[in-house]
Amino acid sequence: MSQPKKTRVTVDIFNRSYTIIGEEDEQHLSRVAGLVNEKMKEIHEKNRSLDTSRLAVLTAVNTMNDYVKLKKEHEKLKTTIREKEE
Amino acid sequence: MSQPKKTRVTVDIFNRSYTIIGEEDEQHLSRVAGLVNEKMKEIHEKNRSLDTSRLAVLTAVNTMNDYVKLKKEHEKLKTTIREKEE
Repeated sequence: MSQPKKTRVTVDIFNRSYTIIGEEDEQHLSRVAGLVNEKMKEIHEKNRSLDTSRLAVLTAVNTMNDYVKLKKEHEKLKTTIREKEE
Repeated sequence: MSQPKKTRVTVDIFNRSYTIIGEEDEQHLSRVAGLVNEKMKEIHEKNRSLDTSRLAVLTAVNTMNDYVKLKKEHEKLKTTIREKEE
């Protein structure tokens, strides 16, 4: 079996350059990087004293929180569908 | 109207201490922090030369990627349900 095709894209996040590698297309990866950049700026605005490392960790925590909540909602929706189909 | 109750929890992520504030309960916030910690360790294992700041940004990117993909799936599922109900 062939390996999934990897996309490599260089993006700027909070004034540093990153090479991101993923199985998604370039547009998707750039959008994801843009969203992280926005969230970092947003948290930075509210907490000007945070160093970049702490700021990035809090951005990751914030995003993970959104992910975990959406995941719960998604699982609930899937259960509802299964119940309807039974 | 009263303000939503805020939870404040202190967690360790990648050997630094963070105070996280959210509307969710303590157990949820600790779990979220634990997931970020795991993801950072995972990326660190694969890229030992990354400094903590870059590592944290890439962890945020990775999590945002998961979020955006799940969001698409979730919207698709909601559309399917709406179509079935019509």
